[in-house]
Amino acid sequence: MSNTYKLGIVGYGGMATWHHQNMDRAPQVIPYAVYDIDPERTAIGAERGLKPYDSLDAILADEDIDIILLTCPNNFHAEYSIRAMRAGKNVICEKPVTMNSDELIEVIRAKQETGMHFSVHQNRRWDGDYLTVKNVLSQGILGEPFVIRSKVLGSRGVPEGWRTHKETGGGMMLDWGVHLLDQIVMMIPENIVRVTSRMYHTSYEEVDDGFIADFEFESGLVASVEVDTVAFVNEPRWIVRGDSGSMIIENWDIDGKIVRAADKNTVWEDEILYTSAGPTKTMAPRTRFSEETLELPVVKADWMEFYHNFAAVLDGTEEPLVLPGQNLYIMKLMESCFRSSDERRTIELDFTLEQLVQDPLSVAKSVEV
Amino acid sequence: MSNTYKLGIVGYGGMATWHHQNMDRAPQVIPYAVYDIDPERTAIGAERGLKPYDSLDAILADEDIDIILLTCPNNFHAEYSIRAMRAGKNVICEKPVTMNSDELIEVIRAKQETGMHFSVHQNRRWDGDYLTVKNVLSQGILGEPFVIRSKVLGSRGVPEGWRTHKETGGGMMLDWGVHLLDQIVMMIPENIVRVTSRMYHTSYEEVDDGFIADFEFESGLVASVEVDTVAFVNEPRWIVRGDSGSMIIENWDIDGKIVRAADKNTVWEDEILYTSAGPTKTMAPRTRFSEETLELPVVKADWMEFYHNFAAVLDGTEEPLVLPGQNLYIMKLMESCFRSSDERRTIELDFTLEQLVQDPLSVAKSVEV
Repeated sequence: MSNTYKLGIVGYGGMATWHHQNMDRAPQVIPYAVYDIDPERTAIGAERGLKPYDSLDAILADEDIDIILLTCPNNFHAEYSIRAMRAGKNVICEKPVTMNSDELIEVIRAKQETGMHFSVHQNRRWDGDYLTVKNVLSQGILGEPFVIRSKVLGSRGVPEGWRTHKETGGGMMLDWGVHLLDQIVMMIPENIVRVTSRMYHTSYEEVDDGFIADFEFESGLVASVEVDTVAFVNEPRWIVRGDSGSMIIENWDIDGKIVRAADKNTVWEDEILYTSAGPTKTMAPRTRFSEETLELPVVKADWMEFYHNFAAVLDGTEEPLVLPGQNLYIMKLMESCFRSSDERRTIELDFTLEQLVQDPLSVAKSVEV
Repeated sequence: MSNTYKLGIVGYGGMATWHHQNMDRAPQVIPYAVYDIDPERTAIGAERGLKPYDSLDAILADEDIDIILLTCPNNFHAEYSIRAMRAGKNVICEKPVTMNSDELIEVIRAKQETGMHFSVHQNRRWDGDYLTVKNVLSQGILGEPFVIRSKVLGSRGVPEGWRTHKETGGGMMLDWGVHLLDQIVMMIPENIVRVTSRMYHTSYEEVDDGFIADFEFESGLVASVEVDTVAFVNEPRWIVRGDSGSMIIENWDIDGKIVRAADKNTVWEDEILYTSAGPTKTMAPRTRFSEETLELPVVKADWMEFYHNFAAVLDGTEEPLVLPGQNLYIMKLMESCFRSSDERRTIELDFTLEQLVQDPLSVAKSVEV
């Protein structure tokens, strides 16, 4: 095995094009072959220099290929991952890794049996807005956090096609939720104990066109994630409140600010805010002198780090960054969200991230007993 | 009885001053007497032309007084209301009406026994921001609503004094929640079926210094109310999303807008939003041509309408606008919020607004069986 790895791409749509366009930034990985169920898409890949194949078996039989990139619809991820690993290929799988946790457990079994490297392209672990929030929290700039809200809103509805169907893994929880839940879990080093969620079904009954989900951590901190495709007025990407300050990140460009109490012991002067309906002392603004505004300590990163890490794992020089046990945890969190919404109640979690990372199949074993 | 009514004020702090200052706008009601537990406050009222009394019994014994205004701390509301009505006085009570629903039931019993008029000063039913949202919803401008968020945020913490103690009815749920829940209930002509809430205890263990509460209606619509006194970055007063448009009201001045889909059937062009982490078709902005921005159809009103109505009820020419059964409903909603937060779960409601308005004591009877 050399220090460069040949990549075979399975499914050549929008995401595959994005990967392909960026591959020159990860010289360890060489785009090499393509197969799409639609021959026209395979042909487009071939025009762009990839060796075309007309079946999954054929591309998997190419002994030159080290890594299979799965950028096909979600309902193919599990089967194709398993077939690829059994054919001796390492696998990079797009998100969501599978349709549900049962499928993922089968994928993890195949990984353990074959010893191949399998990792999910959780590219949004390298988003600057998320890393900036993580940085602020880890530095304790806001004091003890008690509210974290992560929001991604659009007004175009769910894109037509497979995303609107349940059997192809459509809906916004699987599309965006899988990223935003992963960020929350990677950001807060605590166990989640309870989940309360609600799916929006504004346009589609079959799949959620948005959702809101509250994750309660052991400390009582609640992180909320919201996605909506029927929101005509945008809202900030992040709001975080701690006991000594708040943070806002407006958008993907990481515009925003931190506002903190300059004196923690508020002196109550006789300042009153007169609203049209009556006076309020509680909601009067602070004086300028008792708060300070800080610039965001922006952190930026590059999602190509995922590819560098994947190659380094194959080299034997790094541990993998995205672990199947983490994906299984997120998958089970998402399943808890669906259950919470269906049953209109809060779900108490009976699994932890640590448990699933250390022994992903522990969940499967307990089912088999 | 004449067409003007003499008012005796019990408790002469900030809210009493506000009432007193505005009384010339309700010429039917004449500010006349004052009693405060603190003689200095009584003296201030006397300087402003009110007849001073040095005890509750003394002011209640004044036969010239028609209406007692209770602007004393919350823990005195029930006892003083009952004593005032038994002394033959009509009562205007500040919010929250009582400390809990059991107390309110005793007040309602006293009202029924004495036949006096008793009404709670829910002044924020006349807030322009709230009435504007109500107007937009009733006109169906946003289509079918699925998200309603009402938020009041400050950064000064809970004001020192009685508001920080449980036994005096402190905390933000009783202070602001009682207004904002009342607005939601008056706005949406549907039964609430479930409540999920969480109290914030950033600064005080004894009382909530903020909360978030989700109210689910029969149709599935969820209205959320949030109050926080430890929020250093302000957020919009109202966000409403319907299936064909969204509305934002930024502040008490009712700045905001409505944005609607101009064409309900979105045409998916190949527009993609490239974020730093990857492309998204779903969250790409709409083209300018497929949405329209409308000005808010602002509605304004004057809370002195409460006083006009109170006097007209005494005249026998109007029905009361603020009913004790409504207050009992809000009180029981707030109790459900506390319970939801304590027990960390969703509470299914076993009472309706209609039931409590028609027969407030039906709740009490069922307890006595």
